[in-house]
Amino acid sequence: MNSPKIAPAGQDRHAKGLAGVIALNSSICFLDGRKGILVYRGYRIEDLATNSTFEDVAHLLWHGHLPNEAERTGLCDQLTSLRDVPEAVLDMLRGLPSGNNPTGALRTAVSMLAHYDPEADDMSSEANYRKTLRLTAQIPVLIAAFARLNQGKEPVAPRTTGNTARNFLYMLTGEEPGPCAVEALDAALVLHAEHGLNASTFTARVIGATLSDLYSAITGGIGALKGALHGGANTRVMLMLLELHKSGEDPEAFVRRKLAAKERIMGFGHRVYKTLDPRANVLRQMLLELGREQDAMHWVDLCCTLTQVVEEEKGINANVDFYSAPIYHLLGIDANFFTSLFVMGRITGWTAHVLEQWGDNRLIRPRAAYTGPMGLKVNR
Amino acid sequence: MNSPKIAPAGQDRHAKGLAGVIALNSSICFLDGRKGILVYRGYRIEDLATNSTFEDVAHLLWHGHLPNEAERTGLCDQLTSLRDVPEAVLDMLRGLPSGNNPTGALRTAVSMLAHYDPEADDMSSEANYRKTLRLTAQIPVLIAAFARLNQGKEPVAPRTTGNTARNFLYMLTGEEPGPCAVEALDAALVLHAEHGLNASTFTARVIGATLSDLYSAITGGIGALKGALHGGANTRVMLMLLELHKSGEDPEAFVRRKLAAKERIMGFGHRVYKTLDPRANVLRQMLLELGREQDAMHWVDLCCTLTQVVEEEKGINANVDFYSAPIYHLLGIDANFFTSLFVMGRITGWTAHVLEQWGDNRLIRPRAAYTGPMGLKVNR
Repeated sequence: MNSPKIAPAGQDRHAKGLAGVIALNSSICFLDGRKGILVYRGYRIEDLATNSTFEDVAHLLWHGHLPNEAERTGLCDQLTSLRDVPEAVLDMLRGLPSGNNPTGALRTAVSMLAHYDPEADDMSSEANYRKTLRLTAQIPVLIAAFARLNQGKEPVAPRTTGNTARNFLYMLTGEEPGPCAVEALDAALVLHAEHGLNASTFTARVIGATLSDLYSAITGGIGALKGALHGGANTRVMLMLLELHKSGEDPEAFVRRKLAAKERIMGFGHRVYKTLDPRANVLRQMLLELGREQDAMHWVDLCCTLTQVVEEEKGINANVDFYSAPIYHLLGIDANFFTSLFVMGRITGWTAHVLEQWGDNRLIRPRAAYTGPMGLKVNR
Repeated sequence: MNSPKIAPAGQDRHAKGLAGVIALNSSICFLDGRKGILVYRGYRIEDLATNSTFEDVAHLLWHGHLPNEAERTGLCDQLTSLRDVPEAVLDMLRGLPSGNNPTGALRTAVSMLAHYDPEADDMSSEANYRKTLRLTAQIPVLIAAFARLNQGKEPVAPRTTGNTARNFLYMLTGEEPGPCAVEALDAALVLHAEHGLNASTFTARVIGATLSDLYSAITGGIGALKGALHGGANTRVMLMLLELHKSGEDPEAFVRRKLAAKERIMGFGHRVYKTLDPRANVLRQMLLELGREQDAMHWVDLCCTLTQVVEEEKGINANVDFYSAPIYHLLGIDANFFTSLFVMGRITGWTAHVLEQWGDNRLIRPRAAYTGPMGLKVNR
């Protein structure tokens, strides 16, 4: 073998992880990480979480404006009418070996939906919007079904009434959920609906930009969200909280012990936010209300102590995952399904981004700086 | 509703589609689009296509060096021993409605493999390498099985002997393939194994960088490759060639008519290559040999005329898709499966890239320049 030559130097200066690099224009989401501002199409997230529903926000993300009364009714009617999922997809989920990762199962189920959608490869904007609606309506059904199957129970069929949050909680238990639970989940979906070019949204746009179909783009997005550095984080937060709660260790001692051992405490810090994550602010208030109502203030106290100590010691704030975890727990959702809940909200942002990508498309294809050998020859 | 304010200007200067932007360092592939040079870990593609096998190249991509005799035998033995796919995945494929897109079906099947792999979420480098081998061994089995099912035939079980190309052609027909066919497919797999940060490889790395699992990354890569601007192109080339052949139209007249109507002729031009695609050069020679052997020189003549006229009229060269299409056709592969063949080769490059990403990981998360309104408030 020849002795390797080194690649030309000086090509390797770049922002690692594309940090700070502007990849594209988008009119969907404005993010100011230093000021802690998150805006969907002109509206502050705090305003939307308090004064809008998830369906309103879906309409805002897809169409660029909040719905009027007729548009709201129209969209809700469409979404409720599209909830039935193909029996073959439920059968696939039914047949999975136990212990499977729910986000992975959702990735397969969403990929499989394509095969039962005659419009899967129809790239007209009308068909793509209809697929957007179907995915938004059917993903909650798939999640609830798999959650039931995971507990050895048969899925509960969706109802043709009720908003996304209410119907999802109903499908989980077969019982009518309380108004507070519906409201909390609805707000959580709003808060998770969109967040600029995060890794899963970027994935969906990169796939969409090849002119692949919407199912491919969303399947890829779910795969990206599954990662521990992305949507997988809230599951890890809950496992940490549950472990801490079970152990009975003093939360302050727990933090100091972890920090001394240079272990990571889940749910703190964010690539974008250098101050309070505005979504965390809204969720913290929601956790307080839910904790009071459900007589579960120990979770609130635990979270407060953890955030105080980490903020003091490390100067970093709790993020959206830190507060969504105990809220989902109080809603009766298993920790392994938290990332699936994230998908249930983010499907609206992902689809809005892919539709926007197709409105002014170019293949997304950066370059790598080559750092390997040159000039080798195969010996035969 | 308040009158929208406009977002701060001047944020929207960027390379559209990240063209020319360096996203990361990689020692896997060197590409010079102006000179038409493609190098895998130091070796020119022409050298590898002529003097190495697909399994050699897989070893090169994963380990950074070509295998010695013991390594070659070891890798081939491992790959042949890992070909069995779970019956549940074959059942899923069996149950699909007819007319389904093979690349989409492969996306679902690969996603589903994860659920039957106890190591799916084991992120140790040993487990990730074992998954790399399983995916490389099982993807050809899934493709051949679906190709058979699509023709109303039962899948042929893989053999525990023979290289990837030979076993694949055997599973397609149940018959021993000729040596020329095996050699042509083997070289095509080498040529398709790797190509820098193309959209599907980039997708796989973005997903992997969230610390999601290898199945998620590869499922996303397949979804990206499916797009018409990426791996979907060679299917379209073949459909064009078949249509032209069937119509009996003079190829020169066909090109001039298409160009006059400003219609795109599939298989020409490339985002990276501004001169001859070196892979196209190798494939053109291979097409000539295969055409002679199979007494199918009409395909060779057709392709030659098309490239001559397009090069004269537009100054752009035929790309890898243009020549792989008629080769796969002569190997008896249906045009709708050409993108799946691309996956069969590229799985080695994708996995090499994801493993490299994990060796020095950072979340890949660029930014978008916001171009929407600001300062809106929800009216209640």
